[in-house]
Amino acid sequence: MTNEYTPPAVWTMDSENGGQWASINRPDSGARHEQSLPVGEHALQLYSLATPNGQKVTIMLEELLAAGVGAAEYDAHLINIGEGNQFSSGFVDVNPNSKIPALVDNSGAEPINVFESGGILLYLAEKFGHLIPTDIALRTKVMNWLFWLQGAAPYLGGGFGHFYAYAPEKFEYPINRFSMEVKRQLDVLDKQLAKGSFIAGEEYSIADIAIWPWYGNLVLGNIYSAAEFLDVTSYKNVMRWAKAVEQRPAVQRGIIVNRSWGEAWEQLSNRHSAADIDKVLALKP
Amino acid sequence: MTNEYTPPAVWTMDSENGGQWASINRPDSGARHEQSLPVGEHALQLYSLATPNGQKVTIMLEELLAAGVGAAEYDAHLINIGEGNQFSSGFVDVNPNSKIPALVDNSGAEPINVFESGGILLYLAEKFGHLIPTDIALRTKVMNWLFWLQGAAPYLGGGFGHFYAYAPEKFEYPINRFSMEVKRQLDVLDKQLAKGSFIAGEEYSIADIAIWPWYGNLVLGNIYSAAEFLDVTSYKNVMRWAKAVEQRPAVQRGIIVNRSWGEAWEQLSNRHSAADIDKVLALKP
Repeated sequence: MTNEYTPPAVWTMDSENGGQWASINRPDSGARHEQSLPVGEHALQLYSLATPNGQKVTIMLEELLAAGVGAAEYDAHLINIGEGNQFSSGFVDVNPNSKIPALVDNSGAEPINVFESGGILLYLAEKFGHLIPTDIALRTKVMNWLFWLQGAAPYLGGGFGHFYAYAPEKFEYPINRFSMEVKRQLDVLDKQLAKGSFIAGEEYSIADIAIWPWYGNLVLGNIYSAAEFLDVTSYKNVMRWAKAVEQRPAVQRGIIVNRSWGEAWEQLSNRHSAADIDKVLALKP
Repeated sequence: MTNEYTPPAVWTMDSENGGQWASINRPDSGARHEQSLPVGEHALQLYSLATPNGQKVTIMLEELLAAGVGAAEYDAHLINIGEGNQFSSGFVDVNPNSKIPALVDNSGAEPINVFESGGILLYLAEKFGHLIPTDIALRTKVMNWLFWLQGAAPYLGGGFGHFYAYAPEKFEYPINRFSMEVKRQLDVLDKQLAKGSFIAGEEYSIADIAIWPWYGNLVLGNIYSAAEFLDVTSYKNVMRWAKAVEQRPAVQRGIIVNRSWGEAWEQLSNRHSAADIDKVLALKP
């Protein structure tokens, strides 16, 4: 694997590159094994893992419950992506893209499958009328930043995070490319958060819930161990906001759901009631 | 630039990697020069370039006009990203992220700034009540795929396209990584398009308008010259759909707006009326 490389006329997954990824990633899609999904008693069934994209949805659901929206009660089922749970026939029926999180809403006559974390936030915000303004000018500000996150985070997760933290070697060019872009994104957020307490102004919204699990976790040092490398303390407004959002009770609750690693008080594989979370948080020293 | 690289403790843009990107990309954001944006006579002012993200919006606006929505008349102003137009004070005021496309809606009491191409599609669809279903089950299908595109396309554009077509050297690992992911995405789309004529079923929607400029242009060989490399003809349903969408008159009109390269009948830098497009298309041999 050197830089002296001439791509073939037609790409194929050869044994060399297949060896690194074969456990999970393949150039095709669809179910790899027959298995149905578990279904709990609530109308909302979430199939997820506590990666940043997963945390978006569990934070959102906990914020709705904290706001008194009882109909947002949910069952959250762990999808272990290292074991390939996302390739079960049941999961693929809900999300043919085989990525967490995926939500099934059984509150209506027919189940509604919702996938893509940003879309799930918007679906829940509109369904319950919370965390998104109705005024069109304010709503559009929130939507601008919700969509900004969807296009930005792949450069953080699939670009920077992969090449800085996970790739089998440290490749200089991709690390430089994605470090520059992530620092640019942090600077965009820092200038935006200089204008108000939250991403879209003075009101906490789904824009914050979308962005915090990626860029909040990043500057707090929770993902990729890159806080020093990216000089995150220089983004003072992002840091202020990241700490403020982290303190919200619903965030403290949401981030541990479908988490299967860390300390005992940081993980709850499956969530069926508020008491499940209470029990885990009670272990906190 | 070799693979034998140890990242520094703190990333900085050194002269070596700065040399390749300094003309456009930097690790910070904000205005680099004072210049206001041009404003035409219509309520909708678009600032864009005919990249796939730009084409999404011009196709959308032309579809709305084709459907008889006269209020969707628009002025489209060229933003030359090679010359840094996206860093003018006027553009940054509309979109602090300095990416095309950006839209200003002057139809109300106060102007509304809209950015991120997927968000602009949704804003226009909801404003005019077109190209998105009102039934919640059908609407959610469209939204799932609209959000899918926002998260998928960075792997095609910022990942595959960059490393296969634009990077200064052919780096094997990133090309393999992103080729596999793009082929997986094409397979996801191919299986979805086996189920119906369009992305979200039998109705053409903003999901198609979001996805076609990226994956339609890719399989038709219009971007990255990668049709053979990715064996695009094997995705038969994607190819069928790509050709069908390409034939739509609004698509033929939309793809040339804010395009400043190609044959004379393929480019129209600025669009102020339907007649501007008619004149260019009339040059087609």
